[in-house]
Amino acid sequence: MEFQKMSKTELTNLKVQLMKKFEDYKAEGLQLNMARGKPATDQLNLSMKMLDALNSKSNMQASNGIDCRNYGMPDGLPEMRKLFGELMGLNADNVIVGGNSSLNMMFDTVSCCMTHGLAGCEPWCRQGHLKFLCPSPGYDRHFAITEHFGFELITIPMLKTGPDMDAVEKLVSTDPSIKGIWCVPKYSNPTGITYSDETVRRFAALKPAAPDFRIFWDNAYCVHDLTDTPDALLNLWEECRKTGNIDLPIFFASTSKITFPGAGVAAMGASDRNLAVFREHFKYQTIGPDKLNQLRHLAFLKDIDGVHAQMQRHRALIQPKFEIVEQTFRRELGGKGIANWTEPNGGYFISFNVLDGCAKRTVALCKEAGVTLTGAGSTYPYKKDPNDRNIRVAPTYPPKEEVKTAAELLSLCAQIAACEKLLETK
Amino acid sequence: MEFQKMSKTELTNLKVQLMKKFEDYKAEGLQLNMARGKPATDQLNLSMKMLDALNSKSNMQASNGIDCRNYGMPDGLPEMRKLFGELMGLNADNVIVGGNSSLNMMFDTVSCCMTHGLAGCEPWCRQGHLKFLCPSPGYDRHFAITEHFGFELITIPMLKTGPDMDAVEKLVSTDPSIKGIWCVPKYSNPTGITYSDETVRRFAALKPAAPDFRIFWDNAYCVHDLTDTPDALLNLWEECRKTGNIDLPIFFASTSKITFPGAGVAAMGASDRNLAVFREHFKYQTIGPDKLNQLRHLAFLKDIDGVHAQMQRHRALIQPKFEIVEQTFRRELGGKGIANWTEPNGGYFISFNVLDGCAKRTVALCKEAGVTLTGAGSTYPYKKDPNDRNIRVAPTYPPKEEVKTAAELLSLCAQIAACEKLLETK
Repeated sequence: MEFQKMSKTELTNLKVQLMKKFEDYKAEGLQLNMARGKPATDQLNLSMKMLDALNSKSNMQASNGIDCRNYGMPDGLPEMRKLFGELMGLNADNVIVGGNSSLNMMFDTVSCCMTHGLAGCEPWCRQGHLKFLCPSPGYDRHFAITEHFGFELITIPMLKTGPDMDAVEKLVSTDPSIKGIWCVPKYSNPTGITYSDETVRRFAALKPAAPDFRIFWDNAYCVHDLTDTPDALLNLWEECRKTGNIDLPIFFASTSKITFPGAGVAAMGASDRNLAVFREHFKYQTIGPDKLNQLRHLAFLKDIDGVHAQMQRHRALIQPKFEIVEQTFRRELGGKGIANWTEPNGGYFISFNVLDGCAKRTVALCKEAGVTLTGAGSTYPYKKDPNDRNIRVAPTYPPKEEVKTAAELLSLCAQIAACEKLLETK
Repeated sequence: MEFQKMSKTELTNLKVQLMKKFEDYKAEGLQLNMARGKPATDQLNLSMKMLDALNSKSNMQASNGIDCRNYGMPDGLPEMRKLFGELMGLNADNVIVGGNSSLNMMFDTVSCCMTHGLAGCEPWCRQGHLKFLCPSPGYDRHFAITEHFGFELITIPMLKTGPDMDAVEKLVSTDPSIKGIWCVPKYSNPTGITYSDETVRRFAALKPAAPDFRIFWDNAYCVHDLTDTPDALLNLWEECRKTGNIDLPIFFASTSKITFPGAGVAAMGASDRNLAVFREHFKYQTIGPDKLNQLRHLAFLKDIDGVHAQMQRHRALIQPKFEIVEQTFRRELGGKGIANWTEPNGGYFISFNVLDGCAKRTVALCKEAGVTLTGAGSTYPYKKDPNDRNIRVAPTYPPKEEVKTAAELLSLCAQIAACEKLLETK
């Protein structure tokens, strides 16, 4: 029965029953965590053979004859550039391989634009008050980088097709103080949707008022499918070629959720003109990335087919966890009119919407009973969800039994918070 | 016989003989490189067992129970912080372990100060025209970082005791636009000298006009001894404790020349107040460093004794190369009054001074005969040696036979350039 149709008495009685269950959970002294998109231990075990793949008997030379143990090769190994080119959808020549973190490369890119500028424009730090577009719900660490550098964060609604392109086009074409937009185009964090072909085409056709406006295209989940019917993302690089907007996007990806989150390899891609600026900056920043870790990854993954095979093994481990959460939500919350959630074809998150004004309370109740979730509001700029509605659920890290318990508790807390909210106005 | 005492005829005849030898070298079609301080292949081979030390059977947990394969631990592993604390001379709590490059950490530190500032001061990018002190001859990549960020580079003469502290004290105490000084305090790049106790004490006692002035203390060669009578560097951290100037220095070090230059581990150290600023910045920049490479290093080096043992093995390979260069210089240039050079107790370089106005010509002649050296002037700000005198010699990378040939050719070219220079005024 839908909660909204219940009388005050019915809601009051229901709340008493729910609170009894809640106290039972509390008595269990749970300590569960569904806060961050972290691979589980069994996923990490999938890459242990990589540690043996590069050993004291291995060939230390890249295909160009360079000894990977020594300094040099700031762009990374040719084979690794090729592999990331295939993952991100552009040619190897337009790829720079970095350290262990694509977030680090995004940060450094923003920092470079802050102090040195792009496209012949003044450095961003000398252009006064600037803004950045944040499709929301979105990735908190993206938003945090631009907040740290003093940008005003503009919320763009996330639709089923991606960011609201009417809003994006209007803002970008008229306001030269808008310098960029954060995008997770495939299996978006946290909604799990993939940008539609039309959305990608509209991105490629943007006519920004600022010559130094850039699309930060974080393809973090480019091969992270969970089903036999994976989403397909149109290639922004190719679309930008067609529109003559090749300087618009900057691509990012990493192996953090392919091999090891703490010891993977990251890369970025961009047009020759953009890379000329970044290479000039990076050449002062470092003498080169860790090429042995690149060699290690190549020895283990080999090529794009090896990557896909590895992702099948990840899928086998995490798809059941997504299924548990979705089944629990359906069973516990179906038909009650107080929550909806995504059932994504890939990525690392389920986006869970509770009754307006109930997200903070729901997360607080979960915390009280020993289940840590991503803070309510985290998926919005300044951690402020205007509707206090969205909760990001990250089912990959805990074991299946714990995922089940956590999803049940979350369903329970969402119902308690809904009862409380509805009783306020009865 | 001293060249300066020769007659015009003697010099002319000498030059003809030298040029004949030079043409013989040219005919050999040499392709030698003594430009960069790179470990040689046999040095890289010393660390090959490190690749086996971490394998699929290894324990992946840090001493605090954290799985090193996953995200997290932005300061690095406790054991690695302790080891770098011992190398840099400060306590583990004041150490942050980073990626594969200490240069990267220096760059990021400068960049952080540029955009976010230190000690409650305005970010450097908003403070107008700023200056940085560059003891010279010094390290070209240090100078390049601050040049890239728009600093005016101020040359400070390098004495046998370290930077000219009279000049440093006067400038730093009176000019608030001076924000820092680059130091390689032990086996300095390229002069090979170690700062005297008095120099270190005077650094610790500085009273900068700018509250956000910092000493960039790059202890790149802290354990890189070449002789049985190694230099000892006074501990700046301890001296700054005594003077109450604990916020003044920022320490840097790496294993680049202990294990693998391209795949080592770097670290920085500073006071709690400084680290609070840097940690706040770095927390947006990355989710954490490559902890598996830290684990790999610990499995191989184990502790400070393991580091010293490894450095003994390096010494055995490179000390003979230094000896070859020094012997060649003594034999070919001794008593001729046209060159002097350092014979350091450690580090990676011999600093070679030719007759004033002859460094560029000497390097150009070497290049013509197939030996690449660090560009003349590189050891000075803006690559401009006011006396056109200093050449940095890096003997580690080529095999011994090639080092010998290169040193002989360099000696020959220094003599040719001296003849030409002296003939100009006869």
